[in-house]
Amino acid sequence: MRTHWIDERIVYDGSQLRSHWILHRCGVSGDALVAFRGPCAVAATEMADLADLDGPGIAADDMVHFVWEAFDHPDLLLAVHRQRLLSAQATEVLRELAPAAIVRRDGDDLWVGPGKLSISIATATPVSSLIHFAVNATPGGAPVPIATLAELGIEPRGFAAALLGRAGDEQHSIAAARAKVRPKGEWR
Amino acid sequence: MRTHWIDERIVYDGSQLRSHWILHRCGVSGDALVAFRGPCAVAATEMADLADLDGPGIAADDMVHFVWEAFDHPDLLLAVHRQRLLSAQATEVLRELAPAAIVRRDGDDLWVGPGKLSISIATATPVSSLIHFAVNATPGGAPVPIATLAELGIEPRGFAAALLGRAGDEQHSIAAARAKVRPKGEWR
Amino acid sequence: MRTHWIDERIVYDGSQLRSHWILHRCGVSGDALVAFRGPCAVAATEMADLADLDGPGIAADDMVHFVWEAFDHPDLLLAVHRQRLLSAQATEVLRELAPAAIVRRDGDDLWVGPGKLSISIATATPVSSLIHFAVNATPGGAPVPIATLAELGIEPRGFAAALLGRAGDEQHSIAAARAKVRPKGEWR
Amino acid sequence: MRTHWIDERIVYDGSQLRSHWILHRCGVSGDALVAFRGPCAVAATEMADLADLDGPGIAADDMVHFVWEAFDHPDLLLAVHRQRLLSAQATEVLRELAPAAIVRRDGDDLWVGPGKLSISIATATPVSSLIHFAVNATPGGAPVPIATLAELGIEPRGFAAALLGRAGDEQHSIAAARAKVRPKGEWR
Amino acid sequence: MRTHWIDERIVYDGSQLRSHWILHRCGVSGDALVAFRGPCAVAATEMADLADLDGPGIAADDMVHFVWEAFDHPDLLLAVHRQRLLSAQATEVLRELAPAAIVRRDGDDLWVGPGKLSISIATATPVSSLIHFAVNATPGGAPVPIATLAELGIEPRGFAAALLGRAGDEQHSIAAARAKVRPKGEWR
Amino acid sequence: MRTHWIDERIVYDGSQLRSHWILHRCGVSGDALVAFRGPCAVAATEMADLADLDGPGIAADDMVHFVWEAFDHPDLLLAVHRQRLLSAQATEVLRELAPAAIVRRDGDDLWVGPGKLSISIATATPVSSLIHFAVNATPGGAPVPIATLAELGIEPRGFAAALLGRAGDEQHSIAAARAKVRPKGEWR
Repeated sequence: MRTHWIDERIVYDGSQLRSHWILHRCGVSGDALVAFRGPCAVAATEMADLADLDGPGIAADDMVHFVWEAFDHPDLLLAVHRQRLLSAQATEVLRELAPAAIVRRDGDDLWVGPGKLSISIATATPVSSLIHFAVNATPGGAPVPIATLAELGIEPRGFAAALLGRAGDEQHSIAAARAKVRPKGEWR
Repeated sequence: MRTHWIDERIVYDGSQLRSHWILHRCGVSGDALVAFRGPCAVAATEMADLADLDGPGIAADDMVHFVWEAFDHPDLLLAVHRQRLLSAQATEVLRELAPAAIVRRDGDDLWVGPGKLSISIATATPVSSLIHFAVNATPGGAPVPIATLAELGIEPRGFAAALLGRAGDEQHSIAAARAKVRPKGEWR
Repeated sequence: MRTHWIDERIVYDGSQLRSHWILHRCGVSGDALVAFRGPCAVAATEMADLADLDGPGIAADDMVHFVWEAFDHPDLLLAVHRQRLLSAQATEVLRELAPAAIVRRDGDDLWVGPGKLSISIATATPVSSLIHFAVNATPGGAPVPIATLAELGIEPRGFAAALLGRAGDEQHSIAAARAKVRPKGEWR
Repeated sequence: MRTHWIDERIVYDGSQLRSHWILHRCGVSGDALVAFRGPCAVAATEMADLADLDGPGIAADDMVHFVWEAFDHPDLLLAVHRQRLLSAQATEVLRELAPAAIVRRDGDDLWVGPGKLSISIATATPVSSLIHFAVNATPGGAPVPIATLAELGIEPRGFAAALLGRAGDEQHSIAAARAKVRPKGEWR
Repeated sequence: MRTHWIDERIVYDGSQLRSHWILHRCGVSGDALVAFRGPCAVAATEMADLADLDGPGIAADDMVHFVWEAFDHPDLLLAVHRQRLLSAQATEVLRELAPAAIVRRDGDDLWVGPGKLSISIATATPVSSLIHFAVNATPGGAPVPIATLAELGIEPRGFAAALLGRAGDEQHSIAAARAKVRPKGEWR
Repeated sequence: MRTHWIDERIVYDGSQLRSHWILHRCGVSGDALVAFRGPCAVAATEMADLADLDGPGIAADDMVHFVWEAFDHPDLLLAVHRQRLLSAQATEVLRELAPAAIVRRDGDDLWVGPGKLSISIATATPVSSLIHFAVNATPGGAPVPIATLAELGIEPRGFAAALLGRAGDEQHSIAAARAKVRPKGEWR
């Protein structure tokens, strides 16, 4: 998996969570995780999570977004595991960057006290799996109480770089781990 | 996935990481995660990780062990992702039980300063995938510098209960998440 | 797999054989088999079986419908096997409820003499597999000669309950069977 | 899938349920279902079902045996579905050959009153899936109360031919069914 | 896999690379490879290869086309391997029919000197995988320098028959090869 | 996939075709294709192809061997396709190195006139797939008439380097091809 930071500000409206958007936007082909900064306003037609369709909406003025497309093992069950692991990695990065902060992971959501710090979804396309994960950078624009990197004193670009690195490294270490184990047999 | 605590002390020698050991030992069939306390001394013939074959040995006098067998989706790549997520969940539980402690996750290993807190492996059988994850409870018997739950002031039985609960709950929430997303299409 | 009877009468027009219809209609998420009673008139655009596109149409005034969505193992080959087994289970239920009747299964179709008792299709969505199976309850509205539960003296609601129970139980027993076998080796 | 009747009497001891036994015995390669007549006495080391290890033993003096090896889609979950469908097909064949008999299918087991008519197991090898299904032909040699084809007035060779034909035909019709359906989309 | 030559001239515009086109056109169901002769002019909306979207266009006045749809193992990675093997088989057929010619395979493309002899793509549908492979028969109509069968002195119909035969035979031999190997174990 | 040439002469006796032999021998982990030179004498217990068990034996005094282990997509059907493609690539390399030679590929075997130039097998382990492909370098020691690189005037080390390069490059191009195609829909 390759990782990439996109310097331009992009308005995330959900259409970016489509097959080959990364290839088109960044010229990076194959499994890739990219990140960028920008507002969020997901159109209902682009919502992948059915639970969001009747919800308060998905929006915020300033987020750090991550989009991950995987062609190599596009299974949705695996994608949800990767999404959860990415969320857990995010808490680990946040803890390193802001040791005093108490960030709570509940599934794919991160919370700081009563404030929702992140949004996320994992879904499938006919040729790949896709993950969107985004963390609020500064306050404003959200339909629910949120927490932000700004409150935690964390610089968004540095956070993105750290999480891109950690997620990329762990995918490589997972592939290596799989290739160096012997199988086991029956108990009796 | 069902979870189960085994009250008896069991000497973990690696032979427990075999297909249907959980069924035989606990009468629990199907996907299950069980935990127990006991010493650890893994025979070379039972080592699944080839990297351990020429290493210092795998041993400790007192650990909390977790054994997870999955029949439903026995893919090894998925199993390694589950193993990493289990390790991350363990750090989350430890942080709740000992907020002042600094536990570092590096892949499937947990560290407290220079001390190795845990060991782990994920592997495959012809009919399932298997994960072993174990955390040192009290000092002694290890061929490398270790950290222990005792140093962190954490009671082993409570830690096991919390991790069994968290891992079981997240597997259910992952299954639910997969069943409520719409697929996405092409960028253009 | 969860099973559920829907009390309301629903006009089955084929659009119900879509991803997450069960979730939307019944609030039941994950693998589920639901049943209801109502007329049938499948629009050509909703026909999944290409053999039906140039056929006499799919319609009847009063049927007992079963809709099964599976997310956990969405493979289409498996879905067709499940569909065939569901048809076989239906003949078993019918034999118990009407021992004197002679119901013949031919693939996914049930026949009573020259009358077609049922219709069925198994297909795929990008996130799941889907099965529709329906049995004529009372005569009328079909473009081909049909047989009905009424002729067999079988009460539709009781038939549905029995088949929902049998199909649900067998899925659980299949999962259990898979988790308690040892693999086998080579002949020589 | 090819089907084949073996004329010679074979003592089934469980070792026949191994990879490539059909190839070795019959010269038939690829997916195949073969049948033969002979006694049954399964050694504990050859038992695939762990539930049988502590049971009364698996034996009978005279059975019609079916052995099915599948290389093309060796998934164990699919194999158990095929096994259940084979059992259902057997009841259908029996009903045709002996309309007055009441044969009850309970999972992979067939019963006539209190007598067990059949035994069966589905399991996996590293390169295939395997199914054994056998029906008692004449009484004698079983550790539990049994029913037999003889009691039902059914000639074993004819029963075998009919079930081989039905199972082979249905596998072809399942493959054809899968290749002629359009996929379906989302409910909303 | 069945193979079939279509006598009628067909204008290939990319819409033929759709699920069940072979079934509709030829009445051949299941895995099949068909061939026909005709011009080529692929509409942008039908282009499967994203690299072609911004290219010079896909067109030629006279080609021999091959369309392969596979339902049995619809994995895209496998389909690309099949496509590459089909290209290699084409070079082997060309070498037999025109021993003096020097045909160079570069991935899925065949070249004769600076002239592009073929075009190809492998892609997925929700129920199958699809491959298009086409070789220029006579000059004209292409947006890039091409080579043709005419230059090589090869009769298009004979070439098609030979490649259909070779590809069909090798799929059967591949299936047979898979079903006659013993698995292997660990080095230590 | 990584590729690697082993300088030492190795006696290939079939035991090298085991899981993690490449890791152990070369320290290369993950998907890898390695090559070396040495005699061949495969013990019956190490033969993977059942057709060889009753054959004339597998032996030769001097061959160029290729061993390929794949963990990432260990499916046996895919492995056989890779094996066939590797054989086709070998003929392409040979044609470049010895344009006047006529090398014929028949499945996984290469022939020069009546002489067998190569041997090959593809098989599975519980954690990977494995391919062995070997070409005779100089005459001697074979139980059947053979052809050799020496007769073709081809230097073994150069041939190995060219095939390692071509096979490695094509695996990368196959992965890239899969990640840049749009899916296709239904014909009607």
